[in-house]
Amino acid sequence: MDSFDLRLPALRAAYRAGRTTPRALIAALRERAATLNPEYRLFIHLLSDAEIEPYLAALDSADIDSLPLYGVPFALKDNIDLAGVPTTAACPAFAYTPRESATLAAQLIALGAVPIGKTNLDQFATGLNGTRSPYGKCRNSVHPDYPSGGSSAGSSLAVALGVASFALGTDTAGSGRVPAALNNLVGTKGTKGLLSTAGVVPACRTLDCVTYFTATASEASELLALTARHDPADAYSRANPQWNDASAFGAVQRFRFGVPAQLEFAGCDESPALFAQARAALEAIGGEAVEIDFAPFVEAARLLYDGPWVAERYSVAGALVESQPDAVLPVIRDVLAKAPGATAVDAFRSQYRLQALKQRCDAALAQLDCVLTPSIPRPVTLAELERDPIGANSLLGHYTNFMNLLDYAAVATPAGFMRNGLPWGVTLFGRAFTDQYLLSVADALHRKLAVPLIGGAHDDGSARARKARHDGMKLVVCGAHLDGLALNGQLRARGARLVEATTSAPRYRLYALAAGPTQRPGMMRDAANGAAIAVEVWELPSAELGSFLAGIDAPLALGKVELADGRWETGFVCEAYGLKGATDITGYGGWRAWLQHLEHERMKATTA
Amino acid sequence: MDSFDLRLPALRAAYRAGRTTPRALIAALRERAATLNPEYRLFIHLLSDAEIEPYLAALDSADIDSLPLYGVPFALKDNIDLAGVPTTAACPAFAYTPRESATLAAQLIALGAVPIGKTNLDQFATGLNGTRSPYGKCRNSVHPDYPSGGSSAGSSLAVALGVASFALGTDTAGSGRVPAALNNLVGTKGTKGLLSTAGVVPACRTLDCVTYFTATASEASELLALTARHDPADAYSRANPQWNDASAFGAVQRFRFGVPAQLEFAGCDESPALFAQARAALEAIGGEAVEIDFAPFVEAARLLYDGPWVAERYSVAGALVESQPDAVLPVIRDVLAKAPGATAVDAFRSQYRLQALKQRCDAALAQLDCVLTPSIPRPVTLAELERDPIGANSLLGHYTNFMNLLDYAAVATPAGFMRNGLPWGVTLFGRAFTDQYLLSVADALHRKLAVPLIGGAHDDGSARARKARHDGMKLVVCGAHLDGLALNGQLRARGARLVEATTSAPRYRLYALAAGPTQRPGMMRDAANGAAIAVEVWELPSAELGSFLAGIDAPLALGKVELADGRWETGFVCEAYGLKGATDITGYGGWRAWLQHLEHERMKATTA
Repeated sequence: MDSFDLRLPALRAAYRAGRTTPRALIAALRERAATLNPEYRLFIHLLSDAEIEPYLAALDSADIDSLPLYGVPFALKDNIDLAGVPTTAACPAFAYTPRESATLAAQLIALGAVPIGKTNLDQFATGLNGTRSPYGKCRNSVHPDYPSGGSSAGSSLAVALGVASFALGTDTAGSGRVPAALNNLVGTKGTKGLLSTAGVVPACRTLDCVTYFTATASEASELLALTARHDPADAYSRANPQWNDASAFGAVQRFRFGVPAQLEFAGCDESPALFAQARAALEAIGGEAVEIDFAPFVEAARLLYDGPWVAERYSVAGALVESQPDAVLPVIRDVLAKAPGATAVDAFRSQYRLQALKQRCDAALAQLDCVLTPSIPRPVTLAELERDPIGANSLLGHYTNFMNLLDYAAVATPAGFMRNGLPWGVTLFGRAFTDQYLLSVADALHRKLAVPLIGGAHDDGSARARKARHDGMKLVVCGAHLDGLALNGQLRARGARLVEATTSAPRYRLYALAAGPTQRPGMMRDAANGAAIAVEVWELPSAELGSFLAGIDAPLALGKVELADGRWETGFVCEAYGLKGATDITGYGGWRAWLQHLEHERMKATTA
Repeated sequence: MDSFDLRLPALRAAYRAGRTTPRALIAALRERAATLNPEYRLFIHLLSDAEIEPYLAALDSADIDSLPLYGVPFALKDNIDLAGVPTTAACPAFAYTPRESATLAAQLIALGAVPIGKTNLDQFATGLNGTRSPYGKCRNSVHPDYPSGGSSAGSSLAVALGVASFALGTDTAGSGRVPAALNNLVGTKGTKGLLSTAGVVPACRTLDCVTYFTATASEASELLALTARHDPADAYSRANPQWNDASAFGAVQRFRFGVPAQLEFAGCDESPALFAQARAALEAIGGEAVEIDFAPFVEAARLLYDGPWVAERYSVAGALVESQPDAVLPVIRDVLAKAPGATAVDAFRSQYRLQALKQRCDAALAQLDCVLTPSIPRPVTLAELERDPIGANSLLGHYTNFMNLLDYAAVATPAGFMRNGLPWGVTLFGRAFTDQYLLSVADALHRKLAVPLIGGAHDDGSARARKARHDGMKLVVCGAHLDGLALNGQLRARGARLVEATTSAPRYRLYALAAGPTQRPGMMRDAANGAAIAVEVWELPSAELGSFLAGIDAPLALGKVELADGRWETGFVCEAYGLKGATDITGYGGWRAWLQHLEHERMKATTA
C-alpha cells in the first residue's frame, strides 16, 4: 500500500494500470487505519467488511472511465450521515443511525468513491482543536505535543496520515481550515450552499459548510466541480454560477490580493516570517499586495460566539443539555450556556451589526481578487488547551470565525513548516462563488512555495493551459467606451475598472462607421494587412456583462480580440456589412487619435 | 390650482410654460391640505412657511431643466426624517427632531422636489389600515365608511386627494401596497435595499422598504431610476444591477405570469370578478397565465407576525412600552406583547423555516416573469376594524405579508372599482431587482384596464418605443447551441429556456466554418443577397451571459440579429475573416439541415 500515492490522478493511473484494485487498496487502508487509531483517535467508526462491501460490489461491474471517483477512498466526519452507520457528532447520547446518506456522501458514492469510516471531531463540531471528544483527543499528524486542530479533526488526520484520498469535514467557524493548516492539507470551505448540507448535523445552520480535505488544490477543484449541485433537500443550497465551474480552475495571471494591515500572531516568533514568505510568493506569481483594514473582519468574527449565533448550536444540542447534562462535555456546555438567555431581539440586533460590518468588508473585497491571511495566528499545544480550553481554542479562530458570517469562500493552503516540523498555513478568501478562482491561486501558491506534500510531489503545474476565472470579466474596448469618452460611463456604472491601456496585435484595421447614434469605430481583423490599434482592457463583474451587451447596437458585437502580447480577450468586433461607407482610419492608430484629428479639422474650419 | 395635473410630466410642462411657479403651487396645495386635514387626518405636520421657504428659495436660482424634479411637491410619512421637523412615527412620546433628512428625502430635495408635510400613519408603521394613530383615523379618499389603508395612510391620501405629486411611504408587511389599492394609486415596494432606509424609523429593519405612491407606474419608474442608489449609510442598501435601470422600463411583449391556485377573497362577491378582469387584461397584452401553488407564500406570510420578526419591532418601541406603556396605543402593545418572550433560538428556527419556504417560492418564480395577485382579499370597513382591530387588519395582509420576507419586488396597481366606488387593486410581484420590469407590466395593465386616474388621463402608452427588460436575456442561436445539439448544454446549465424556433430576416447567409474544435456555423448579414436562416431564441439569466460569452471562441461573437418579424435580438454573428475557407450552406436553410446532409453523405460513403 505504501507504494501508492492516494491523490486522485495517481490513484486513477494505478487502477487503470492494474497496479491495484479497490478491494486490495481498501483492505490495506483499513488495516493501516486500525493500526493508527489507538494513537491518533482519528476514527469513531471504521467501516466493517460487511458495511463496506456494498460500495465495493458496486464497483465490480463498473467501468473505471465511467466513474470519475472510481475506487477513491474517503472518510466522513461523524456529523455527516452515512446510511446504516451511526452518526454521533462525538456525543454517544445524541447518536442515531440514518437510513440514508447525506446528499453529498451519496453523490460521492454514486461517482465511485468508497467511504471507509466516520471520523472523530470536537463534540457537535463546536471547537477548533480536536480534543473535545469522548472518543479521545486527536493529536497532530506530525507533532505529538500539538492537537490535530478541529473540529474536523479525524478527517484531517485521515488524509494527512494516508488512509484516505480525501475527507469530508464541516466548517462553521474554521473547522475545515484550522486542521488543514496544522496537518499540511488544503482545506476548502466553499461558498455557503455550494455543497449540500442535507444529512449533516447542524452546528449553526445558517452558516454551516461541508468541506474537502485534500493534499492539493487541484483535487479540491475536481471534487467541487463534481459535487457542487443545487440540492432541493437543503434549504440553504444555492446554485453555482457557471463562471465558477471546473473550467474556472487554471493558471493565475496578474491579480490583486489584500493583506490585513493588522496582523495577529499572538506572540509567535516564526509565523510572521512564514506569512511574509507566502506573501512574497504570491507577489512572485503576479499578485499585487494591497493592505486592508482588518478591524471589521475581526469584529464580525467576535459576533460568532459572543453573539446570538450560539443559539443555533443550542437549537441542536440544547434539549440534550437540559435532559442529560452529563451526556455533553463540560466545555461544550460552557459554550452553550449563554444561548438560553439570548432573546430574539438580541438575535436581530446582532444581525444588524453584522450587516453593517459586511458592507465595510464587501467594499474592501470589491477592489480585490482575493485576500491572504495566516490560517491561524499560531499553533497552540495540547498543554495550553488543557490549561485554557476556551481561550486557546478561540485564538485559533482569529482568521476563520468571520468567514461564513460574511458569506465568503475560503481555501486553507499549506505554506511551510515551523522549526519543530509542525505544518503552517495560509488562507485565501474572497467573494461568494469565487471558489475555483481561490483554488487556482492556492494551487499556484502551493507550487511556488514548493511545500513537501502529503503523498508526493505536485503534478506539473506549468502545464495548466486554461486561465483561472473569477466573477470578473476582461473586456477590450476601442471606441466610445475608452476612459473618459462618451460611453465610458456604461462601464463605470457597472463597477468596471481599467486594467491596462495597450494595443491589439498588429492584425487589425480600424474604421469610423458611417451611421449610428454615436460616432463609433469598427475593428476588423486583417492578419495580412493589419496594424496595432490602441485599446483598453477593462474588468467588470461577469453578472453585469449581459445588460452591457444588450445595449450594444449592430453592427458592433462582442467577440474575441487578439492583444499585442498574444492574449485573446473578449472585446468589441464589427460585422462586415457594417463597414459600408465607413472610413478606414487605421493610420491614426486608434479612436482617440481619430477624434483629435476630427477636432483639429473642426477648429481649422471654424478659424477659416 | 384645480387646473393643474400634479403628475410629473404635466407639472414639468406647466412650469416650463410658465403656467405656475413652485411658490404659487405649494401655497395652493398647503391651503388645500389644511382644508382637507380635519376630515381625512392625513398630515401630522404640514410644513410652515418658514419651514418650506429654504426648499423654495433653492429653486429660485435653479434651471428647470437641470433639476429632474424641479418644484415637485411631495409628502413624507412621519417615520421618515426631514431635517428640523419632528419625526413622530405617530407616537408623540417617541418624537425627536432630526438634524438631517433621511438619505432618500435629501436625494429628492437635491433633485428639486419640495416637501410639504409629514403624514399620518399607523403607529410605528405597525398596521395596514390607517386608524391606529393618536393623530386621528385616516378615512378613505373615496368612501367615508372605509379606512385609507395603512400604515402609510396619510401618504396615500396626499396623492389621492391631490395635494402632492407623489409621497413616500414605508412597507414592511404591505404598508405601501394596501393603501395604494384602497385609493386608486400605484404603490411601488421596490426590491429591499434599492431605496435607502437611512433616516427611517425601523419597523423590522431586515425587511423595511421605502415606497413611492404615484398616480401612474411611469412616474414610479422615473422616481426609482432617479433615486435607487447604493447608500453606505444604510447597512441593508444594495446596488441596483444595470439591467434594472431606467432603460428597463418600456413596452411588455410576450410574458408568463403566475396566478395563485388558491385565491382568498374572504367572502367578497365583487373581488373575484375584478381579479378575473385584471387577469384577462394581462392575457390580452401578451401574458400567459400559469397557476402556482400559493401555500408556501401564505405560510411565509404568517411567519411575519406569528414568528420572531415582531422582536424587530420591539427593538425599536420596546423600551418605550416598558417605561411608558400608556404612550403606546393598546393595539400596538398587543402586537408587540409576544416579542419579549421570543428567544434567539425561536428567531433562528423561524429563519430556517422561512428559508425552506423561500426555496419553494423561488422555484415557482424561476419559471415566470411575474406573479399577479389581488392586493387585498377584500376591503374592510371602519366599523369592522373597530370591532376586531387585529383580525380585520390581518386580513388585509394576506397577499402582502410574505413579500419582504421572501425578498421580492412588488408593485400595487389600480384595477377597477367596487360598486360602492371604492378603488380595488392588484399586485404584480417578482424576483428581486425586477422593479422596472414589474412597473412596465403594471403600466401596460393599468392602461389596458383604462381605470380612471388620479389627476387625469394616461399619457399615450402606445408611444413606448423601448422594450421592457427584466433579469432574463434573449439569445438567438443558429448552430451547435440549438436544442439537442452538441453545445446546447451550455445554455441549459445556465437555466436557459427555449422561447421560440423561428428564422432570421431573409437577409443572412450561413457558412460552415473551416476550422475550430467543434463544427460551427457563421451567420453573415447580406441584405442584398440573403435568405431566412432557421434559428432559435432562448432566454437565460442576464447574470449568466458573461460566462457564456467568455466561452465563445473567435471568429464567433454576440451581436444583434434581425428576426423574421423585424425584431433585433442579441445573438450569434461571425467576423468576416473567419469565413476564409468556409462553405456557403445558405441553401440548406439552417444548421440542422446541413448536419443532416453531412450525415446522409457519411452514410452513403459508408454504404458505398
